[in-house]
Formats: sequence, C-alpha cells, structure tokens
Amino acid sequence: MVIPSLIQHKRDGAALRPAEWTALIEGYTAGRVPDYQMSALLMAVVWRGLNPEELAALTDAMLQSGDRLRFDGFERPRADKHSTGGIGDKVSLLLAPMVASCGVAVPMMSGRGLGHTGGTLDKLESIPGFRTALTLREAKAQVERIGCAMLGQTPEIAPADKRLYALRDVTGTVESIPLIAASIMSKKLAEGLNGLVLDVKTGSGAFLPEEAQAIELARTMIGLGEVRGCPTVALLTAMDRPLGRSCGNALEVEEAIDGLRGEGPADLMEVTYALAVEMILLVGAAADAADARKKLEDSVSSGRALETLGKIIEAQGGDSKVLDDPALLPQAAEVEVFRAPRDGVVAQIEPRKVGRAILELGGGRRTIEEEIDPSVGFVIPAKPGDRVKAGEPLASVFARNRDGIETGFRALREAIVIGDEGSLTPLITHRVTASGVERLG
Amino acid sequence: MVIPSLIQHKRDGAALRPAEWTALIEGYTAGRVPDYQMSALLMAVVWRGLNPEELAALTDAMLQSGDRLRFDGFERPRADKHSTGGIGDKVSLLLAPMVASCGVAVPMMSGRGLGHTGGTLDKLESIPGFRTALTLREAKAQVERIGCAMLGQTPEIAPADKRLYALRDVTGTVESIPLIAASIMSKKLAEGLNGLVLDVKTGSGAFLPEEAQAIELARTMIGLGEVRGCPTVALLTAMDRPLGRSCGNALEVEEAIDGLRGEGPADLMEVTYALAVEMILLVGAAADAADARKKLEDSVSSGRALETLGKIIEAQGGDSKVLDDPALLPQAAEVEVFRAPRDGVVAQIEPRKVGRAILELGGGRRTIEEEIDPSVGFVIPAKPGDRVKAGEPLASVFARNRDGIETGFRALREAIVIGDEGSLTPLITHRVTASGVERLG
Repeated sequence: MVIPSLIQHKRDGAALRPAEWTALIEGYTAGRVPDYQMSALLMAVVWRGLNPEELAALTDAMLQSGDRLRFDGFERPRADKHSTGGIGDKVSLLLAPMVASCGVAVPMMSGRGLGHTGGTLDKLESIPGFRTALTLREAKAQVERIGCAMLGQTPEIAPADKRLYALRDVTGTVESIPLIAASIMSKKLAEGLNGLVLDVKTGSGAFLPEEAQAIELARTMIGLGEVRGCPTVALLTAMDRPLGRSCGNALEVEEAIDGLRGEGPADLMEVTYALAVEMILLVGAAADAADARKKLEDSVSSGRALETLGKIIEAQGGDSKVLDDPALLPQAAEVEVFRAPRDGVVAQIEPRKVGRAILELGGGRRTIEEEIDPSVGFVIPAKPGDRVKAGEPLASVFARNRDGIETGFRALREAIVIGDEGSLTPLITHRVTASGVERLG
Repeated sequence: MVIPSLIQHKRDGAALRPAEWTALIEGYTAGRVPDYQMSALLMAVVWRGLNPEELAALTDAMLQSGDRLRFDGFERPRADKHSTGGIGDKVSLLLAPMVASCGVAVPMMSGRGLGHTGGTLDKLESIPGFRTALTLREAKAQVERIGCAMLGQTPEIAPADKRLYALRDVTGTVESIPLIAASIMSKKLAEGLNGLVLDVKTGSGAFLPEEAQAIELARTMIGLGEVRGCPTVALLTAMDRPLGRSCGNALEVEEAIDGLRGEGPADLMEVTYALAVEMILLVGAAADAADARKKLEDSVSSGRALETLGKIIEAQGGDSKVLDDPALLPQAAEVEVFRAPRDGVVAQIEPRKVGRAILELGGGRRTIEEEIDPSVGFVIPAKPGDRVKAGEPLASVFARNRDGIETGFRALREAIVIGDEGSLTPLITHRVTASGVERLG
C-alpha cells in the first residue's frame, strides 16, 4: 500500500477500495501511517466525501480497531439513543432509566462536553461519587443486572476513532458528514444494539445548523446502521433555543430528576418521550407508538423510572440520595435573577451564547483536559414567544462569584432578545428512517 | 494564532492574511506548527488555491526562511532559466555558459532528477570530480569571477521550501499550481536575479501535460516574479517527445558539449537559443532579439561558450578534459542498436516511457537517497514524423549489462510507435509575459 497514491486518489475524487480503508486504519492504529499523511487524507475526505461503500469500510475498520459489548445469551432487546449535542439537552438522563424500566436494555456510551455543548458524562459526574469509567465487563454485567449502564468511551472501544478524532480536532477536519457519521457509528455499533435512535439537532445552536445537512447526517448514519444490522431512526429536533429550562451540569441533573417525577418542562418531556417511543418500537417492545408511550408514561407515574435511575447511580458508585435531596448536588455560591429589560415578546434565546457563557463560567471545557465546575449555569424558564413585562424574572444565573454573575448577565443580555413579536418554532420537525424523510413539525 | 481555525478558513474557501502565512511558515520552520497541521493545510490549498496576495506572502515567507545570494556592488546583470522538467532536457548545460559568455551572469541553482525526469545536478556530476554542493559564498565568488556557477539548493536557501516539499511528496499535495509556483520562485528569487526565464514543458512527458495548466503555472510564476522585482518570461515548449537525441546523464553532457561545438541537434539548439535570447533581452544586454541571437551564435562559433563551460567545470573541481575527450565520461558496459520493427512513420516517442526506462536502468532515482548510474540511457536520433524502414537503426541503448539492454529494448518497443502516419508538433508553442500570452507554434 503506497499511502501518497491513496491520498492522491481521494484528492482527485476517486473512491478507495474497502480493503484500502481497512489497511489505512489498521496502519494508523499500529503507528505505521503517520499523522501527517492521515490529516492530509482527512482533508481530502472533507473535500471529496465518501461513497457508501467507503463509509461502511471506514466505520467497520474503526469499530474493528477495538472491542465491543457482547451480549450473547442475554435475551432482553437493547437500544440506545445518540444526540448530536445541544444546550440544555439532558434527555439521556431521563430516557435511559425510562426505557430500561420498560424492559428494553440501554447500554449507553456517552461523551463529554466540548466547546459550547454539554456532555452526558459531565452531567452524571456532578452526582457525588458517580463513576462513568466502567470497563466493558462491568458495563455488560450492569446492563444484564439492572437494564442500563451509562458509561464513557472505554479505551477498548474504537481506539482508532479516538486517535482520529483528536487529529481532526486540531487539523480543521471535524466538519465532514461522513467522518462525523463514521465516528459516531463506530462507537454505537460497538454497543451490541438491536436498535438506535438519533436525535439530530437543527437550528443556530446545533453542530450542523442547516436542516438539509442534519437530514444528510441522519440518512448517512441510518444507512450505516442498516448495513450493519442495527435498525436506526432519527428525529430532527429544534436547537434554536435551549431544551428545557436548565443549562449547566448539576442544574440539568436536577431538572432530569424533576422530569422523572412527572414535573419536567413540556419541551424536554416531549422530546424525551418521542425518542424513547422510537427506541421501544425499533426493538418491538410495544404494539405501537401509543402503547409505547403509555408504557413510558407508566414508568414515570409509577416511580419505576426514578427507581431505575437510583439503581444506576448506586451501581456506578454515586449517591442516590440526590434523588430525594437535590441540595446534595454541587451548589453554586452565587445565584441571581435576571429580569426582562423591557416590555415585549421573547424573540430569541440564542443557545450558542448560553453555551459559551457556561464555558466562561467554568462549567464547560475548551480543551479535553480542562476541569469543569458542575455547579454553574443558567435556569431559563422563558421561551421564544413569551410575552414579558419589564422587570419580570426571565432567568437565574448560577456562578462561583460576583464576576461570574456579571458574566452571566452580560451573556443573557445578548442571548435573550426581547422584541415586539416572536414565536416558538416546532420542536420535532422530521422523522428520518431507512425508507425516507417524514416532515412532522 | 490558532492553527486549526486558519486551516478551517482555508478549507472553507477564505483567504488567509499575509501575516498569517508568514506566521505559519515561521512556525513550521521553527517546529511549532507540526507536520500533521501543515499537511492538512496544504491539502486545503490544493483544494481551494491561493489568491495572488496569499501566494506572494507564502513565497516571501519561504524565501525569508533562509539566506540568498547577494550581489551588492557587482555590476553585471544576472539572469537564470528554470525548466519544469522533461526527458533529454540538457538545455541548462548549454545555455548557462552561452549566456555567461555574452556578459550576463548566471547564478544557476538546479535540482536533482526524481521520478521520470532528469536533473541538471545529476548530469553535471557525471563529469568526474564535478562538485555541485557549493556554499553561497563560493557561488557568489565564482559568479563574480567567471560569470556563472551551477549549484544545488544549499541548506541556507529556503529551508522552509525543502521541508514543505518533502512533506508534500508524501501527502499527495504536490500537484497544486500555487504550491509549485511558490516552491520554484522561493528558490529562484534567492538567486539575486534581474531576470528569469521559465521553460514550461507541455505534452505527455511534462509534469503538467495540459497546455492550459502550463499557461496557468507560467502566469502564476510570472506574477510572483513581477511583484518581487524580478521580470519573468515563460516559453511553453513541447515535451511530447524527448528533447534532443540523448537521454541519460553522461550521454546528455556529451550532447551538450556537441551543442557548444555547433554540432547539437536542431531541436535542442532551437529551444536553447530561444530561452537564452529571452534571458539576454530581460536584462537589456542586447538591442533586440536578433542582436541577442547573434551574440549567442557568436559565443558558440567562437568557442567562447565551450571555454566558459571549461572554466565552470574547473572552478567546481571537475575534469575539463571531458570537453575534448568525452570518453572520460562514465561509459556504459553494453551498447546496442535498436532497429525499426517495421516500415512506416514514427508516430510517437513517448517521453515518460523513456524516462521510466532510465529509472529501471539505474540512471534515475525513485527516492531522493538513491545512487544513480550516470552511464546508462538512450540515444534516440529518430523523431516523430520520420519515415523509417524495417531494420533501420532508430536508437541505441546504453546499459550496465545484458539485462539492461533487454529492459531498454522492451521500453523502446513500447515508447516508439511506428504507424502509417505521424508528424512533429511545434517545438515552442507560446510565449507568456506579464502582459499576456502569445501563441508561437
């Protein structure tokens, strides 16, 4: 294999053969293909794309670079959900215990927050003692015992993806739909699933703001899932405003607990139910959508979902008393209410500005090594379209000190636009399956 | 400077600011910008190109990464010629002493052969004792003393280009007109010239076979020369067949000596005179083209040009007796005549096949470290359009052993196509200047 000529081929718009992708990824993992050749090749992929055969081969090679969860002999169906990331997106914290309470196992591998979006692992780790670094053996045993484990990408899973992602991050090669799809799916396919639901965010706060790109990413991942025997469905959901009210790690855990008590904000619950229904339908664990929805609602109203979350927390070393006493979660030193500067209608709550402000408050990370402060963030009950009066509370800022409160206020003054009119865009706009795109919203 | 965002900018089609190019090249030379970021950026440049401002900044930064020849106080005008490379292209060996004999100094920095094309340094080094590794100080003194020095790229000249070229070579990023232009011009502008002539080859044996690409490269380099105060002119010349008769290092030196004795093949002399005339006109060392041509013809007929070559050889440690006795050049152990397989007309002599065969015979290098055998090669007096009879001699193969003769015959059977018709395409097709493109052939 002559690497420069493979790079030239891709650069000139040709497709590489599956065996070439396999050899490239094996060579890269083994250190025979240097970073400087891989980064040039990745830029050529950003430029030229990958055809479905190349994409499947690349994803497979990344998957095969490591181990996977194996549930041989375990009868329960398994499903997971992946979100492309957004502000206030704590859906996993509710959905995993709800679905697990309906008899569908959820072996959920999540990521950390980076840049302006949060990560499920960081949220979970705001629970005192909670340990996300499970081994594959631990995760498997826990899934078989209590129906769910919520862990980070272990070193055994797709190590090629881990190295490639770090390289893409510093070489301007992150923004490629096939590379994003391969990265996500190489990990999800390692979970041993019978079904996968994707929450693809759209709107200004999303990784891919444009609807067309979001649909392309969804279709690409669905295609990969289908070829690899993991039926996959995607919902496109709005990320032109934060999801729910709370943004910030501990604050979002608290909101998730509220949700599992039946007291969650309407938008958060709607997205959670919609995704959870798809998971249950994908593995055939309900007769139809209405039946699935009913099972999920029962899991909440009966308290079983909250109980399952308690079991997960305990199994992973956390203090499940937070479920009864959220004050056990890390608390911000300073809290202050932000009020409407004028009469009017909320025209916009810009999620990226909220996300960046959490970063500035110390609640997110710019580089993967940064420590984060789980206590900081925002609670923003206001939504676009709300009519407000000057001086009326719109949000609360949670910070480490007075400077943080100032930073938070400054961010909210920019993020929350009060105008003369405004309205809430539809929350769930499209359902994408292997057979096509259905417009919902 | 945040490198990943500069890469992203270029990737998305934006232009980087001159100061950013400077910082990138300085950082790369100093080892602060790693190869894997530079190769991704280079691939983005292959994709998106460079605007004239970016190209000038990149070239300047590469030039500034090293030293240059400085001729302060030296009155004679200085000119050089650069060829994009071809088979049988020994023009420099004739042109440098001819132009130097006409009162124009020629500080000529050349390269080695790589792949299917030869390099002037390798040809010169087939002269016993000839040393091309001059320091800048030696080169300057020699130019001031005898009007010409023929040296390799010293470590002081554009070290950034040297590192970038090595990186491009292994990352599929060689084929980019702005990167090629920047690489060539960063070295040529270090020669302290008053004028530069480019011999841009076109046709199947050229680096850029297409006329349109050749013109684009010419215009790009001319633009760079103009902004940097080095008037530049290009001729497009045919490389759909070898130039002259000899192909191979020592064989080409012998042909160049023949040429300086007034016994060179017509095509070689025509290209040499045309390029040399342009050099003389660029620095104003003749009244017009006819005057320049006359001066050059005199330099040959008077024996002054051959004498100058003798001085260059002696100044650089070589044995100038080769001028009188070419048998002192390395001689191939085996020589055999290749004959026309049938009656007909020479339809094609494919230069790439001849060049690759020289590689196979050991007369070229696949990697920059390879040793070469200067004695091997071909002499091919036939030209496309020649009417031939079966059994008539078409060429001679010069090889180390019988296997080499077989290899050479095999190559010639493929390279020389005898058909029912054929003709010679025009030798010099275009003249490109800062003001436009003139069609000649």
